Amino acid sequence: MPPGAVQARGRQIATLSVLAHERQVDPQFAALLGELAKDGTLDDVQRANIREALRDQRRASRIPADLVRAWGEATVRGHEVWVHARKAKDFSKFQPVLEHLVALAKQRAAAVDPSKPAYDVLLDEFEPDMTMARLDPVFDRLKAFLIPFLKRVKAADLPCDVSWLGAHVPAAQQREVGESIVRSMGYDFECGRLDTSVHPFCGGAGPTDVRITTRYNEDSFVGSLTGMIHETGHALYEQGRPAELGDQPVSRARSMGIHESQSLLWEKQIGQNKPFWQYHYPRLQAAYKFLADVSLDDFVFGLNLVDFENFIRVEADELTYPLHVILRYEIERDLFAGKIQVAELPAVWNAKMQEYLGITPPDDALGLMQDVHWSGGMFGYFPSYTLGALYAAQFMRRARQDVPGIEAGLAAGDPQPLLGWLREKIHRHGSVFLTDELARRATGEVLNPEHFIAYAEAKYSRLYRLA
Amino acid sequence: MPPGAVQARGRQIATLSVLAHERQVDPQFAALLGELAKDGTLDDVQRANIREALRDQRRASRIPADLVRAWGEATVRGHEVWVHARKAKDFSKFQPVLEHLVALAKQRAAAVDPSKPAYDVLLDEFEPDMTMARLDPVFDRLKAFLIPFLKRVKAADLPCDVSWLGAHVPAAQQREVGESIVRSMGYDFECGRLDTSVHPFCGGAGPTDVRITTRYNEDSFVGSLTGMIHETGHALYEQGRPAELGDQPVSRARSMGIHESQSLLWEKQIGQNKPFWQYHYPRLQAAYKFLADVSLDDFVFGLNLVDFENFIRVEADELTYPLHVILRYEIERDLFAGKIQVAELPAVWNAKMQEYLGITPPDDALGLMQDVHWSGGMFGYFPSYTLGALYAAQFMRRARQDVPGIEAGLAAGDPQPLLGWLREKIHRHGSVFLTDELARRATGEVLNPEHFIAYAEAKYSRLYRLA
Repeated sequence: MPPGAVQARGRQIATLSVLAHERQVDPQFAALLGELAKDGTLDDVQRANIREALRDQRRASRIPADLVRAWGEATVRGHEVWVHARKAKDFSKFQPVLEHLVALAKQRAAAVDPSKPAYDVLLDEFEPDMTMARLDPVFDRLKAFLIPFLKRVKAADLPCDVSWLGAHVPAAQQREVGESIVRSMGYDFECGRLDTSVHPFCGGAGPTDVRITTRYNEDSFVGSLTGMIHETGHALYEQGRPAELGDQPVSRARSMGIHESQSLLWEKQIGQNKPFWQYHYPRLQAAYKFLADVSLDDFVFGLNLVDFENFIRVEADELTYPLHVILRYEIERDLFAGKIQVAELPAVWNAKMQEYLGITPPDDALGLMQDVHWSGGMFGYFPSYTLGALYAAQFMRRARQDVPGIEAGLAAGDPQPLLGWLREKIHRHGSVFLTDELARRATGEVLNPEHFIAYAEAKYSRLYRLA
Repeated sequence: MPPGAVQARGRQIATLSVLAHERQVDPQFAALLGELAKDGTLDDVQRANIREALRDQRRASRIPADLVRAWGEATVRGHEVWVHARKAKDFSKFQPVLEHLVALAKQRAAAVDPSKPAYDVLLDEFEPDMTMARLDPVFDRLKAFLIPFLKRVKAADLPCDVSWLGAHVPAAQQREVGESIVRSMGYDFECGRLDTSVHPFCGGAGPTDVRITTRYNEDSFVGSLTGMIHETGHALYEQGRPAELGDQPVSRARSMGIHESQSLLWEKQIGQNKPFWQYHYPRLQAAYKFLADVSLDDFVFGLNLVDFENFIRVEADELTYPLHVILRYEIERDLFAGKIQVAELPAVWNAKMQEYLGITPPDDALGLMQDVHWSGGMFGYFPSYTLGALYAAQFMRRARQDVPGIEAGLAAGDPQPLLGWLREKIHRHGSVFLTDELARRATGEVLNPEHFIAYAEAKYSRLYRLA
């Protein structure tokens, strides 16, 4: 879209949103859904469809119009102020709008379901049925493993020349290499595009119109490459959604956590491990001459380098990333429970950074103002990232058991053994099952962090040659 | 858009069309418009807005729903059959669906306004207030000039080496050169894009989101170049529409004929004459080495080469193009008056081609089945092309009188003297004035074909050195 069209596009989206909202809160629609929910003749898919439609309808109809408007204004304003405050590295500028957003988010949660703790209602928006009672033990278990394990990795202090990570690669060449890798993963360009944008994303308008984007840093080709693999993971899920269910609620992706499981499965579990690169690395070396003398093992090591000095979540590696997320989760949880106040966030943030990662950000721009989420009122979203990492490990473990040829396929450039399992077990179900049921049918159990822990411990013990 | 998304996009457009149609035919909306039309306190712009809204509302509400559906199905089917029949060069396959489309178009016209001849109602859809009574003398005058004049041009048989027209130019180079010319014409890339498509077009979603496309033939660079200039003419009109009037009916471009006047003004009046190339030709020569020995005069001659063996409207030059249009106009006019039948079209077409252009197409694919319009029920559209050419000449003549620096500006690469006049006299008025009033305010008179005739006679007498 041309940059000058932002306002006009905003008006178009607002018009469509109002039209959609009007229909969703129409009492006649609610009555019809209520009747259908009582209909005993519906099959599983139809019942799930009504369940999902009712969920949307309730959320939309319970938030009063003036709160919708106030929320819209506060999130637009919040983003503006955040951009400014972050640039000025001055949290005191951001504090009042953040306080206002938290207060409004509490009102929204109370409107949607006054019987539940506010933060559980917020979590549920992105991850249906997820609660603090379920997350707390999972995240505590992760912390109990990661914090001491990271100390062992750090102590290993393995020498390795990774200067090739900073090699200069023109954007056009990165695009060509990236496109061929994206294609080899099974991404269907007949029903998808690959473009350039400031912030990478996967979007579109349904399974036949999927759009992924990336950005090219000419002095850091790995970021764009792994970014493309990540977005392709999202895109494969979108392209694999049940097309025969059209635009019905039940055809949608299950949740943010499950969506992130698909992107992280390809980015981390596949794209940062050896079998995938057994096929692709010789091709990459042919395109990028500076890799000629870098061995496959050293290349994979470089992709997985743990950075102990990094303050930024989006730049974090596989081991430190969950701690960035847990820190945010705990802050949101305690904020909405009234245990901490917005004014205390800088101190709380920095104390937790020191406790979990052993570092303290030099300023709040590199600390609690680094993420866009809170400025737009997205409270309860962060856990999805780590839920995605946990589900990815759980899915991969089971996929390997079910389909023995996955690794051999990847090493031969064939994604189908793995992609077929994902299509069959995850993609084609859309929102027919709730998350627990989906996980149980795919892996025999609900969310279980032990699979990620086992994977991480084995992989990084090997990479860092821990005793 | 990915090719696989065609069906999904079709469903989205159908949904939005139904929503828009529902609102347009809502009796409450009609009543409100009726009341406003009687309101004596409205200013000119508000009155024009109501006039345009009423026009849309009447057309939408008078065509019954079953005819809308039948029309939609017939045009989709018509297009399919046409593609097939044209490939097979077999008019007998296309004849029944064309007969059906003509019958339905008569029903639509009778529904919209039973007091007028059907073809006048069809003309009015694309060119408000245009009638056969007005077009007949204009087109007769054009024929009376063009047919004998073309014979004189043909007899001149001027020798000139135009082999450079077929030089090989890679698409990427054409794109670079084209983009710089498009930019130099004043096209605002902040509010516009330039892309590649199978059929060139200018589209978008309002003045801040204008999209133009072109296609690149690597063995015929002139087509893409003049195509880009043509679409930029449309785009400058779109970008110059009154943004302060938002998405209201009055903010829209005046008509197809006026839109085409803007594209043809830039493509033909400017882009195929010397002042424009005094600036751009040295730059073109620097990019395209094969033009090094081609003089500016020979280059301009080549751009304006009259092709006496061409059967195809879209490939026609400035002099033969109006005859292609007049032929179609006369056929449509007589078809809807019942003077000729669909079955007679091949014979009528070929007789007129012989009479007007002195050639007979070898088959119906190169004859009456060459254009997409009739297969989609677009009867009454063709005259817009030549109305555009006539208005373009009329506007240019007056612009030169009003602004003495236009030619000097173009020769120095500055479009502003001309663009400023177009913005002031045409673009910024949207649909505030009816076409006659717009032309009168801009040029002091309504449509007058003499300006095109004088321009064509002078230009081609000079190019072909006629006595």
